[in-house]
Amino acid sequence: MSITIKDVAKKANVSASTVSRILNNLPGYSEETRQKVEKVIEELGYQPNAIARGLINRQTKIIGVLVPRVSDLFAGEILAGIEEQAQDLGYSVMICKTNNRTRDYLRTLYEKRVDGIIMVSGAINPDSYKEIEMMNVPVVVVAAQPNYPKIPSININEYQASYDAIKYLVEKGHSHIGMIAGTKGDDRIKGFKDALNDAGITVTDHMITYGDYHFDSGVQGMAELIENYPSITGVFCASDEMAVGALSCLYKHGISVPEKISIVGFDNTSAAKKAVPPLTTVAQPLYDMGESAIHLLLDPSSEGNKVYPHHIIERDTVRSLRRK
Amino acid sequence: MSITIKDVAKKANVSASTVSRILNNLPGYSEETRQKVEKVIEELGYQPNAIARGLINRQTKIIGVLVPRVSDLFAGEILAGIEEQAQDLGYSVMICKTNNRTRDYLRTLYEKRVDGIIMVSGAINPDSYKEIEMMNVPVVVVAAQPNYPKIPSININEYQASYDAIKYLVEKGHSHIGMIAGTKGDDRIKGFKDALNDAGITVTDHMITYGDYHFDSGVQGMAELIENYPSITGVFCASDEMAVGALSCLYKHGISVPEKISIVGFDNTSAAKKAVPPLTTVAQPLYDMGESAIHLLLDPSSEGNKVYPHHIIERDTVRSLRRK
Repeated sequence: MSITIKDVAKKANVSASTVSRILNNLPGYSEETRQKVEKVIEELGYQPNAIARGLINRQTKIIGVLVPRVSDLFAGEILAGIEEQAQDLGYSVMICKTNNRTRDYLRTLYEKRVDGIIMVSGAINPDSYKEIEMMNVPVVVVAAQPNYPKIPSININEYQASYDAIKYLVEKGHSHIGMIAGTKGDDRIKGFKDALNDAGITVTDHMITYGDYHFDSGVQGMAELIENYPSITGVFCASDEMAVGALSCLYKHGISVPEKISIVGFDNTSAAKKAVPPLTTVAQPLYDMGESAIHLLLDPSSEGNKVYPHHIIERDTVRSLRRK
Repeated sequence: MSITIKDVAKKANVSASTVSRILNNLPGYSEETRQKVEKVIEELGYQPNAIARGLINRQTKIIGVLVPRVSDLFAGEILAGIEEQAQDLGYSVMICKTNNRTRDYLRTLYEKRVDGIIMVSGAINPDSYKEIEMMNVPVVVVAAQPNYPKIPSININEYQASYDAIKYLVEKGHSHIGMIAGTKGDDRIKGFKDALNDAGITVTDHMITYGDYHFDSGVQGMAELIENYPSITGVFCASDEMAVGALSCLYKHGISVPEKISIVGFDNTSAAKKAVPPLTTVAQPLYDMGESAIHLLLDPSSEGNKVYPHHIIERDTVRSLRRK
């Protein structure tokens, strides 16, 4: 096609720079002008070439997003927030599922000349950090430990969220509480231990099992807790996925929830409300955190850690042991 | 950075064309050479510019994927297949959540000069088809009715899959069977009706309710069926999400599954095995279908409809009413 921006400008009776501003979602024209220009673009069949434009503007209007696993509900809800906000601001999103190849993907995104990169739920290792420093592209981390202060991050207070979940179980009269944890030694485990200690309950090793945040490890972790800690009445899981796995395990063993064992999840993904019974959980505002990541990414002055509030959503998996 | 492909070639003692072939994932060099060149690229800090390369090669090595909702498990499993296969072939994937703006997204992807577009689970409307014809970019449709024969598609036989699900319930001794359907008048509803007719069961309106494939509509649909069809013992749901909603509704009403009511889902997403009780469902090979989409897209001779086999996965939500 040989139709150029000048042809559009001429036919719409505006300057070429106005057409360019409209194409690039920049301000400085009336709504009426925008409609007129878009109509002409439609009539002439003009197709702006984003690649050539990228070379001139040094903007591709693409934001790269690295996620551990696309099929994960957790990442999915953050992605929904990222995508809708990106779309509103005229950006496209390129999503890459990283598995363990974060550094390769960072390089690929850099080669595509993305305008920024959002890393969802993956701690940055030294190799990736070196790559990020070399790239000179804005990077924001969402829902992962902010282990490099120069990289802005969005999070909740994981320690306090976990502490509050245990305090909630204690207040409901539970004193035999276990945890299906994720990453060893993380803030959620610290919160679990401190809350129990503050309630005068001694923490021992058999109270904690370790999973990988996914369903199967929740099934396995729950089976271990029943075995190692037979008097258990309450379980805190470091993800909803593992909590749903725990429910599945207890169903198979014929142990009723919450009559025999109470369960608290973490994240408030859509899996929590869909569980049988519906799952009591610690909510992270995942969608909002995704939205916020775009703003932090596009604001050149941004730095530091943005902490969102958490709260407990009460559904049907926790029973009060207090006498009424 | 002023390091060029020639600098890399010189230092690695190979031709510039070899370096280019390696960068573009084309064949024609030994594994040893590849490793040597990649080491030099690393040492020199050479960054190939994908945008400039895109202008020369007319290849961006980006595949655009349109999906109705990223957080959907159904789409997530197809996406996993697409992404892993794309990665193996040296392509990046740009995922766009379309809502109802399919045509706008097609245009955006075209502007980004993607090498091909995969549309997941969304019927093509005449507007989108017009856009696709104009674009001259390969398009493949996955898990949606192939309503334009010129566009290659990947599917299962939806009619037969639904027919088989009902036949399965009938063989288990059920004769009061309802359906929570998705799209009005689709092949799944035809399969439901024909299977019942062939079993000598008269189909009436109160046997079918309509949802939107998502959880809440499954809750609602199940509530309607209990109300309209009190003698019901078996329910076929047009998606696992709606089946999980049905389980949730029955739990709330204190109606046990499968003792009182049997449930069959559709898709075999990860939600099926995670349900309480684990859900019997019709499996679509979603991951494989996603993988296949990439191959169909990159093969210029491809056309027509590729049909994958379906099968029933028996878990714990169907009870046999036959005497043993």
